[in-house]
Amino acid sequence: MKKAVVLLSGGLDSATVLALATRDGFECHALSVNYGQRHRAELVAAQRVAAIFGVRQHRVIALNLQIFGGSALTDPSIDVPTDGAAQGIPVTYVPARNTIFLSLALAWAEVLEAGAIFIGANAVDYSGYPDCRPEYLQAFEAMANLATRAGVEGNRLTIHAPLVHMTKAQIIRAGIEAGVDFSLTVSCYQADDSGGACGACDACRIRRAGFAAAAVKDPTRYLQNA
Amino acid sequence: MKKAVVLLSGGLDSATVLALATRDGFECHALSVNYGQRHRAELVAAQRVAAIFGVRQHRVIALNLQIFGGSALTDPSIDVPTDGAAQGIPVTYVPARNTIFLSLALAWAEVLEAGAIFIGANAVDYSGYPDCRPEYLQAFEAMANLATRAGVEGNRLTIHAPLVHMTKAQIIRAGIEAGVDFSLTVSCYQADDSGGACGACDACRIRRAGFAAAAVKDPTRYLQNA
Repeated sequence: MKKAVVLLSGGLDSATVLALATRDGFECHALSVNYGQRHRAELVAAQRVAAIFGVRQHRVIALNLQIFGGSALTDPSIDVPTDGAAQGIPVTYVPARNTIFLSLALAWAEVLEAGAIFIGANAVDYSGYPDCRPEYLQAFEAMANLATRAGVEGNRLTIHAPLVHMTKAQIIRAGIEAGVDFSLTVSCYQADDSGGACGACDACRIRRAGFAAAAVKDPTRYLQNA
Repeated sequence: MKKAVVLLSGGLDSATVLALATRDGFECHALSVNYGQRHRAELVAAQRVAAIFGVRQHRVIALNLQIFGGSALTDPSIDVPTDGAAQGIPVTYVPARNTIFLSLALAWAEVLEAGAIFIGANAVDYSGYPDCRPEYLQAFEAMANLATRAGVEGNRLTIHAPLVHMTKAQIIRAGIEAGVDFSLTVSCYQADDSGGACGACDACRIRRAGFAAAAVKDPTRYLQNA
C-alpha cells in the first residue's frame, strides 16, 4: 500500500486533504505540530479527524515557534485582526510555517519510506500567504528530492496539494463528497479551548463565505456574530 | 549592519562558519537545535563558541526528532558505527535534518529581516549526507526565496555555505586564521556530557584526519585511542 504523510492541522482544508488521500488509497500517517499557536483547539480537532479517517498513526510534534514570534498566531502581544480589512500579507502569517511543517513531514516520510506528502495549501480563497502558492510548492518538491536518501537513490517524493487551485466552496463540496464532517474541524485563529469560533477573524470570514458560496449549511459553532 | 542567522551546532564546521561570518561584518544571530541528539554536549560547546564570538543573540530551540527516529543520532537503539567501514549513506544520517534546520533559520531570518543564513555544510570530507551537497543548498535557496514575505517583496535571501567546497584541513586552517579555538568544539557523535570524544566514530575520524592533514596539533580531548 502506498504510504503518505498528511499534514493535519485540524482545520477545514487539511481534513479535506486527509479525506481525499484516504479515498485515493494512501496509507495515511498524519502529522500535526503543536507550535505554540493561539488556537490550540485545532490540535484536538486534528485528533478527532485523524481517528475518524482511521489513519495508520497520528503524531503531534512540539516545536515552540513563539521563540521567533513575528505573527499574531505565535506572539500573544499581536492581536488577531477581526475587521476583515487586511491588505498584503496579514499579521496572522507565521514566518516559514509551511516550510517548517513540510520539512518535518519530509523527515518522517524518509523514515517511513513514504513517497507522498499531502498538504492543504490553497492559493485561491486564502489569506495571501507566500507559502501557499503553487510555485513555492513546486520549489519545495524540487528541493526535497535533493535533500534525502530517497532523492539520492532515485525514489521520487511528490508533494500533493490537491486544494491548491480550488475555491473554498469547491473544497467544502469536495470534502463533503469524501465524507468530511466539518463540524469536527476548527479554522478560527482564536478559537476557544472548546473549538468555538470568533466569527470575525480572516479564517472565520473565509470559512463562512465558503459555506455560503457552496450553499452548504455551516456547522461551525460561532461564539458571537460578526 | 547586515544581519545573518548562523546555524551553530557546536562542532568544528559551524564554529568556523560563525568566525567567517563575524569577520565578514555580519551581525550574527546564532541558532542551535536541541533535537534529541545523542551528543548533547555539542549544545554546551555551541554556547561557549557563541559567547566567544559575541553573537547578537543565541537561541536554542527544542524539537525532538526522536519522534521520527531513523538515525543512530536520534534512535538510542541504533549504535553509532565505530569501524570506519560505512558504505553509502551512513546510519548517522538524520533524515531531513539540514532541511529542518534551514527552515527554522528561515523563519527566524524572516522575523529579523536578515538577508543571510550561514550553514557549515561541507561536501568534501563529509559522511555522504545528501543534504550537504551544493545542488541541495541551491535548491533550498530557490525555495526559500518563494516561501517568505521577503521573497514576495523582492528582498533576496542568500544561503551561505562557505565551507561547502573545502577539505577538512582547509576548514581547520581557515578557522584558525579567523580565531577559532577548536578545543571548545565538539564533533564526536557520542561525546560524553563533558565533551570527551570517542575517537572512533566517523565524525572523530574525519576530524582527526583533518588536523593531521592540516599539520595542526589536534586539541580534541579523546576518551580512548581508536
